[in-house]
Amino acid sequence: MADESVVESPVKRQRDDDEENEVSVSMDVEGGKDPLSNGLSSVIPGWFSEISSMWPGEAHSLKVEKILFQGKSEYQNVMVFQSSTYGKVLVLDGVIQLTERDECAYQEMITHLPLCSIPNPKKVLVIGGGDGGVIREVAHHSSVEKIDICEIDKMVVDVSKQYFPDVAVGYDDPRVTLHIGDGVAFLKEVPEGTYDAVIVDSSDPIGPAQELFEKPFFSSVAKALRPGGVVCTQAESIWLHMDIIEDIVANCRQIFKGSVNYAWTTVPTYPSGMIGFMLCSTEGPPVDFKHPVNPIDENESQKSVRPLKFYNSEIHTAAFCLPSFAKRKIGSKAN
Amino acid sequence: MADESVVESPVKRQRDDDEENEVSVSMDVEGGKDPLSNGLSSVIPGWFSEISSMWPGEAHSLKVEKILFQGKSEYQNVMVFQSSTYGKVLVLDGVIQLTERDECAYQEMITHLPLCSIPNPKKVLVIGGGDGGVIREVAHHSSVEKIDICEIDKMVVDVSKQYFPDVAVGYDDPRVTLHIGDGVAFLKEVPEGTYDAVIVDSSDPIGPAQELFEKPFFSSVAKALRPGGVVCTQAESIWLHMDIIEDIVANCRQIFKGSVNYAWTTVPTYPSGMIGFMLCSTEGPPVDFKHPVNPIDENESQKSVRPLKFYNSEIHTAAFCLPSFAKRKIGSKAN
Repeated sequence: MADESVVESPVKRQRDDDEENEVSVSMDVEGGKDPLSNGLSSVIPGWFSEISSMWPGEAHSLKVEKILFQGKSEYQNVMVFQSSTYGKVLVLDGVIQLTERDECAYQEMITHLPLCSIPNPKKVLVIGGGDGGVIREVAHHSSVEKIDICEIDKMVVDVSKQYFPDVAVGYDDPRVTLHIGDGVAFLKEVPEGTYDAVIVDSSDPIGPAQELFEKPFFSSVAKALRPGGVVCTQAESIWLHMDIIEDIVANCRQIFKGSVNYAWTTVPTYPSGMIGFMLCSTEGPPVDFKHPVNPIDENESQKSVRPLKFYNSEIHTAAFCLPSFAKRKIGSKAN
Repeated sequence: MADESVVESPVKRQRDDDEENEVSVSMDVEGGKDPLSNGLSSVIPGWFSEISSMWPGEAHSLKVEKILFQGKSEYQNVMVFQSSTYGKVLVLDGVIQLTERDECAYQEMITHLPLCSIPNPKKVLVIGGGDGGVIREVAHHSSVEKIDICEIDKMVVDVSKQYFPDVAVGYDDPRVTLHIGDGVAFLKEVPEGTYDAVIVDSSDPIGPAQELFEKPFFSSVAKALRPGGVVCTQAESIWLHMDIIEDIVANCRQIFKGSVNYAWTTVPTYPSGMIGFMLCSTEGPPVDFKHPVNPIDENESQKSVRPLKFYNSEIHTAAFCLPSFAKRKIGSKAN
């Protein structure tokens, strides 16, 4: 009944390991040549493939309609392309940072998880997040009076303003002050107890963002926060980087004397289809991250420029529920 | 300071649309030729790429160490390969069904969401699920006396027993009866009110599983269930297939007079990194899916062969919390 055959044979290794960190886009740019020798190579013709040593052995690919921008800043390679089904895509050093189709999940969760967990946030600092999506979300909170954003790479800001107006719209809010510079250095100059919340919207801990996952940085964040202030940092995927997460949790437990929690959300175009967040508070008025005290209700968000697409109070609480394998590893370390 | 350049140029379309449904694996099998002409083509050499008209414009790829099996059954192409970082992978008609690394998420959620929602499930029917993972999970429930499984494709069962012993271990349970055949036909012969729970572990609604997403099938399921019995069916991703999901929800609302709910879980190797489930109950004792009445506690699961890796009561409840964009579309139709 069934036609069956078995093949067991070695597969010739056709890729060298040192190819792993390449940006893998291949396409015929008009004129026949890539304008920059930034590691573009032939993998799937006409597709962008995200291949990295951070997630060996797997790659997510998007079909490219058109490359809109390629540049090399002082810090990283910056690329924007029009994809065929995810809208425009921002890529830094070969890694997808956002797509128009699913950016709502990341931006809304990294912002509203911390800001809905404390009453009346007034002063907020965003580190990284140069695309403007996080400040767009911070601006939803009418209690907020001052939004500082410190992004190291001006090219990210400029490119976002040009190609992602619905994301960079955050910069239009009069409460926003943009500081181009190193977040670590910026924090050192911040008077103690300045902010109600700090949001660290960083890329992965290889490249320019590495320091943002280390203990001295967390100490600076803690100092910059008022008592009972909160921080939310991008904290990788439980499917891919449990070792990194365990380190981050351990570091945070030492630095943040309030509460330390891990949450996550679905983001289809991030590796493993999800991304996590560390949510911590400093000593002071206790913060129960799992039960938001400052909900953004549907009515309020509808008044604003852009209604929320992803975040709501139910998914806020749900974000802190971890699969058993993750709970066993980090559950006892977080609280 | 920043070296910047802009390129705007059309990308030559190098793929034809009719390539979209191809299985996209290219590798040098010993002997230099693919043993079967089943659409294998060159995309990323040495990698498997999942390209389908079900999720146009994107592809997830896994690095292949070795092809272990390729066969063509009466119903579909069946392939097993050893991946470099996700363990062994089962592929049907070019679509990843499971990987050893993340199968726990799908199998545990599709099983324990329904079975933990009713007291003392005794008779359970699984439609599809030929790999044996769902019955492995059903077997965790000590109240269960009879497990029927109806899988259309014997090759899937055989291949799973040979290459995925930790999944196919479900078949070792003496409560299990395997029926090779069409689930739709099987259900027609089932006396009314036979089962406490039916779990439909199907592939996507193109190909052999198509009928399993249609109203006549849901009617048969409803008849086969006792009053207040429950069904859980694979129900696609809210990021990719909201139109299909809305149809499924509408169909279920007509057929299942108890409650109708949508839940989801993270599964990295499924398109968009997640998969959803429809959970419905028939008229009778009310079922509150969001608050499990039949928890599998940690102690009980540790006694069994394989402790749970993913499922727990918290993530059960969290699975029913939807992002706002999905809630607006299906929230009012489900209850």
